[in-house]
Amino acid sequence: MLCSPGDTSRTPRHLISAADLTRDDAVLILDTAEEMARVADRPIKKLPTLRGRTVVNLFFEDSTRTRISFEAAAKRLSADVINFSAKGSSVSKGESLKDTALTLEAMGADAVVIRHGSSGAPYRLATSGWIDGAVVNAGDGTHEHPTQALLDAFTIRRRLVGADAGLGKDLEGRRVTIVGDVLHSRVARSNVHLLTTLGAEVTLVAPPTLVPVGVEGWPCEVSYSLDEVLPASDAVMMLRVQRERMNAAYFPTEREYSRRYGLDGLRMAKMPEHAVVMHPGPMNRGMEITAEVADSGRCTAVEQVANGVSIRMAVLYLLLGGSETALPSAAARTEENK
Amino acid sequence: MLCSPGDTSRTPRHLISAADLTRDDAVLILDTAEEMARVADRPIKKLPTLRGRTVVNLFFEDSTRTRISFEAAAKRLSADVINFSAKGSSVSKGESLKDTALTLEAMGADAVVIRHGSSGAPYRLATSGWIDGAVVNAGDGTHEHPTQALLDAFTIRRRLVGADAGLGKDLEGRRVTIVGDVLHSRVARSNVHLLTTLGAEVTLVAPPTLVPVGVEGWPCEVSYSLDEVLPASDAVMMLRVQRERMNAAYFPTEREYSRRYGLDGLRMAKMPEHAVVMHPGPMNRGMEITAEVADSGRCTAVEQVANGVSIRMAVLYLLLGGSETALPSAAARTEENK
Amino acid sequence: MLCSPGDTSRTPRHLISAADLTRDDAVLILDTAEEMARVADRPIKKLPTLRGRTVVNLFFEDSTRTRISFEAAAKRLSADVINFSAKGSSVSKGESLKDTALTLEAMGADAVVIRHGSSGAPYRLATSGWIDGAVVNAGDGTHEHPTQALLDAFTIRRRLVGADAGLGKDLEGRRVTIVGDVLHSRVARSNVHLLTTLGAEVTLVAPPTLVPVGVEGWPCEVSYSLDEVLPASDAVMMLRVQRERMNAAYFPTEREYSRRYGLDGLRMAKMPEHAVVMHPGPMNRGMEITAEVADSGRCTAVEQVANGVSIRMAVLYLLLGGSETALPSAAARTEENK
Repeated sequence: MLCSPGDTSRTPRHLISAADLTRDDAVLILDTAEEMARVADRPIKKLPTLRGRTVVNLFFEDSTRTRISFEAAAKRLSADVINFSAKGSSVSKGESLKDTALTLEAMGADAVVIRHGSSGAPYRLATSGWIDGAVVNAGDGTHEHPTQALLDAFTIRRRLVGADAGLGKDLEGRRVTIVGDVLHSRVARSNVHLLTTLGAEVTLVAPPTLVPVGVEGWPCEVSYSLDEVLPASDAVMMLRVQRERMNAAYFPTEREYSRRYGLDGLRMAKMPEHAVVMHPGPMNRGMEITAEVADSGRCTAVEQVANGVSIRMAVLYLLLGGSETALPSAAARTEENK
Repeated sequence: MLCSPGDTSRTPRHLISAADLTRDDAVLILDTAEEMARVADRPIKKLPTLRGRTVVNLFFEDSTRTRISFEAAAKRLSADVINFSAKGSSVSKGESLKDTALTLEAMGADAVVIRHGSSGAPYRLATSGWIDGAVVNAGDGTHEHPTQALLDAFTIRRRLVGADAGLGKDLEGRRVTIVGDVLHSRVARSNVHLLTTLGAEVTLVAPPTLVPVGVEGWPCEVSYSLDEVLPASDAVMMLRVQRERMNAAYFPTEREYSRRYGLDGLRMAKMPEHAVVMHPGPMNRGMEITAEVADSGRCTAVEQVANGVSIRMAVLYLLLGGSETALPSAAARTEENK
Repeated sequence: MLCSPGDTSRTPRHLISAADLTRDDAVLILDTAEEMARVADRPIKKLPTLRGRTVVNLFFEDSTRTRISFEAAAKRLSADVINFSAKGSSVSKGESLKDTALTLEAMGADAVVIRHGSSGAPYRLATSGWIDGAVVNAGDGTHEHPTQALLDAFTIRRRLVGADAGLGKDLEGRRVTIVGDVLHSRVARSNVHLLTTLGAEVTLVAPPTLVPVGVEGWPCEVSYSLDEVLPASDAVMMLRVQRERMNAAYFPTEREYSRRYGLDGLRMAKMPEHAVVMHPGPMNRGMEITAEVADSGRCTAVEQVANGVSIRMAVLYLLLGGSETALPSAAARTEENK
């Protein structure tokens, strides 16, 4: 997580980038998410931990799925949630991010979950001093989407290591393949950072025009052949094709894309038996993934959504400093696994 | 209510169509709604019954009135409410109903209240196996709007039978006239089913072009003369004219419609003294109903809104399996009235 | 506050206009807001006072800042909040304010916070008899915005008199200057009324074309020279320039406006050392206020936002009749200060 500049206590304050997370940070979040996943089994599916705290969803881009995932997470922790869609607000009339931030701070926001079209906006919010509360990046431009990477790592760990046995575990040696429009994907960026921090080996597969400049410096391999990479993958993560980009000059034809980079049943058969197929959703069935694969038991898309709520509960819980006593078993287990 | 296919326990799971309700189902909902109506008299106007449960309002069509009625009902039962307007979400970018459903299920929705422009969408949601939670139809295309019919029946029972004495009672022999654009009205369809199940005799009055094909098979009479039917009506339900349909070739002119099918003071005087005028709202004053009638003491439009919250509380309560102990008097009274 | 017509108990029922408030009313609200401001220091930043009550935000105009301020206030008092944006609802399809009001009343709204483009809409709502709940004006046309004036007065009192010592105090003899497009400003109107009621001396500074007709009848001075007035001001309130009005014939050029009516560092230096600069937000930096002034310690814009939540908590608390016992210190202190 990101600490405040000059904060010697190193108390985590914000979650801006998966690249900021140490291995210990990441494992703590995954372990806390395991505890959070159990809240759904309680007679009353809530924890009182964040009662009286206010979480603001500050969305400059529409993203209903991400917004309701954070909303569900905050409400299960008994926080109050205020949705602030920047569309139609004074923000769209030219109010600066600074003034919006100062406003939310003054209204008593304990956490601001921000989605923004510009890469770096959450970082600016967190490091500006405008705001005292925690800042959580819910996706910024083509930069990062750290809670997505965390829920992906959580999903891989649960599937490949096992939920109960997984506590304290990382992804050492697991081979993850990320397929698609890496160039524009904040999901890919966050995953490369987080998965390698957790010890996984990441391979990117993308059309040559959709590989980012400077990828040589990234801690991962690049391949142009999906078929070659599949047999050596423990998890294959299909990126969503943004339909609005498909007509761009740099984009392959839809048919070409689907033929070379789409995942169908035949290709899935080349993966090891234990390997899983992942997708951040919503899926373009017939484009990057066929319905057969999407609906197979190896596709974790739905689990990823469920895990997203657990991860976001964990992040809000850790950032807003829920008292340890509210999660005794988490504290105990974390000790045991050290 | 609708049970899951193969569910031998016959536990109600969904509310898709008024046609699915047995007389006992319907009376149970009305009786439960009577109990719910009393919550408003408590010092704290809430029941803790659904604490920790999440109700998602999944609205593919705008309908602020219906949405806030369900939202108020769920909050009075202490549920968490998440509003999901499909406009501007990935749903409008082509996400399938299936993927939306799987997402909501994965996020832990205990109930999904769905409003959809396509007839049958709630049924598909409920019977697909995509979702474990309860599905409540809040209006689908020209098909059904069962909670509207329930609140209408509840309103008739309270007015004609009496609130306290009404428990356990149905509408045996009551004569209800439904007037207007029956062809496009899910409200009319749901009411014909529910009211006849409850023993009422229903007459439809509509311009010939606005009578549905196949109405001969419906358990009701059809008339083209409002004036003839009024003296024999215990309740006259005016349907809302959808202004966007008024210019269609099949639609009478506004003046013609109002003259032949609108309810004014003179017409109201032909009704028996005890008879009530109903309207689902919002009313087009001067079109299907004059201001004089709308504001008279015989018009139940406002009561219908209040009753809507009670009915929706009852439906959510029964579907989400609130424990019996939370409503002792309901259980007791239901016993007494058997 | 506004009492119901013929209400001999003089129980406050609505807050429509700052002009309705007596000095005692206003001081009681400010004192209650001081207590409310302390809720933020509690371990759980909520009061249970309005549990089971429903506050509806009925917004016919977009105003995210005002809406979330009321939402935060209501939630800190444990009320349920329902947001009703009139856009896209049946209201925009021609439903009358009356029918909307009757609907909200029937759904059990205990308070309706209304923002409307037409001056007088909240008054109509409050005095029509359509609604039993409290009506709070959150800004109507060019008429009033009373909670804004209250939070402004609260901010002045805290800054100039001091928070703790301020209880029971008014603004006797304080000199407040309001600068800008007074003609279209409900904020200016509400402030002139409230501040003079509280004993302050108000001076308006505006371009001649932006002074309202009939201002001679207002209890304040008018000046056309900002520079002359500044040295004798304890608080200078800069109004927001509405960019959509800047091209109107009656509006000075942007440059002219900024040169004559904008506040920059040089002008601020002419103010007494203790004097504060106020702005309702969002600020047009470089237009009516320079960034230097906006970010100086003398600018209270951010405090005003925080104080807005306290004031709105106080108003909802007082109107919805929170029991005295929930605020023992408030009651006690009010006694002491009499």
